[in-house]
Amino acid sequence: MELKSFLKNLKLMSTDNLLKQVAFIKEIDKLKYIQRKTKLFNSDRPENDAEHSWHLAMMTIVLAEHSDKPIDVLKVLKMVLIHDIVEIDAGDTFMYDTSKNHTNTEEELLAAKRIFGLLPTEQAEEFIAIWEEFEEGSTDEAKFAKSMDRLEPLLQNTSNNGGTWAEFGVPYQKVYDKKKAIKHGSTSIWNYAENLINDSVEKGILKK
Amino acid sequence: MELKSFLKNLKLMSTDNLLKQVAFIKEIDKLKYIQRKTKLFNSDRPENDAEHSWHLAMMTIVLAEHSDKPIDVLKVLKMVLIHDIVEIDAGDTFMYDTSKNHTNTEEELLAAKRIFGLLPTEQAEEFIAIWEEFEEGSTDEAKFAKSMDRLEPLLQNTSNNGGTWAEFGVPYQKVYDKKKAIKHGSTSIWNYAENLINDSVEKGILKK
Ligand SMILES: [Ca+2]
Repeated sequence: MELKSFLKNLKLMSTDNLLKQVAFIKEIDKLKYIQRKTKLFNSDRPENDAEHSWHLAMMTIVLAEHSDKPIDVLKVLKMVLIHDIVEIDAGDTFMYDTSKNHTNTEEELLAAKRIFGLLPTEQAEEFIAIWEEFEEGSTDEAKFAKSMDRLEPLLQNTSNNGGTWAEFGVPYQKVYDKKKAIKHGSTSIWNYAENLINDSVEKGILKK
Repeated sequence: MELKSFLKNLKLMSTDNLLKQVAFIKEIDKLKYIQRKTKLFNSDRPENDAEHSWHLAMMTIVLAEHSDKPIDVLKVLKMVLIHDIVEIDAGDTFMYDTSKNHTNTEEELLAAKRIFGLLPTEQAEEFIAIWEEFEEGSTDEAKFAKSMDRLEPLLQNTSNNGGTWAEFGVPYQKVYDKKKAIKHGSTSIWNYAENLINDSVEKGILKK
């Protein structure tokens, strides 16, 4: 291939990628309409998934030093920024809803394929792989990302007189069992979180 | 110093950092209440700064390949995630408000010092430096971050029949002059954006 036609093809490919990427960027705007059960700090206004994802990204940058293992912060950021995008199709599942399976439901996998599938092939595959890595939770990056995802609502509920624990009558042991996942990412954050949970019982905003 | 007391001090320092970081994490929740003039895609619901920052972070990950210069994506992500946090104290300034100076106002600098100042000293200094680098806009990372910040409302306004351009009567030349900054980050994204602006004139949603 001549250099000129090679460069022309490269430009066409780049434009083709850009159009797909813009379609994806428009589609994910819908994450701003997906409401969580958890409320903002000191508030009764529900948080949406885009706000939640931004907050987890900020927490990742700020708290990365507390990870027990060395982590690729850029990878964790990608995880927390995209982890809830499947909820555009599949909806938010409340952490303490026992009627639903929380790991990688078929509905969520279809959603991942449809939404990330708007991107150029290579990028779509990368995003699906990152989302699956988060869901699986076995790499050091996924463990830290999940500890951020558990910590945010803990901070919110303790600032909201029990928040969703009070609203839905979630008892201490269930909260403790869910939050324990924080320990897989960071011992020091878990120590802090465990204290917060125990304090909540003492304050009467979490029932033992 | 003995090893034991050295380790004890290290643990105390880590706990001290964590408490400051949690205070910061709670404070920045307020970004979710700062409303922008721009509306969500195909919508008349205003976007807030946390949603906006999440969207820019997603755009950064997705569009980084179009940067004219090699960029440190993690650095750009930090920039776009924190770039509006000063607005918690200083408020949102509308891009086309000619009565206000948009670069690094004194009010914003005070806000940066107060809010990032909640973090441990080293981290506070890092965040203030990143925010200043973004505001200055001279590094390759800042240029790309700013092109994301200009592109999002362009995509929103064109999906909203002119959006804030129509609402506040902003003419073609003003829009063009502001959006031109996209070119400093990416020629290919600028080519796309320029077409979008010209199409908007043809469609009658932007007045020439
Ligand atoms: Ca979720």
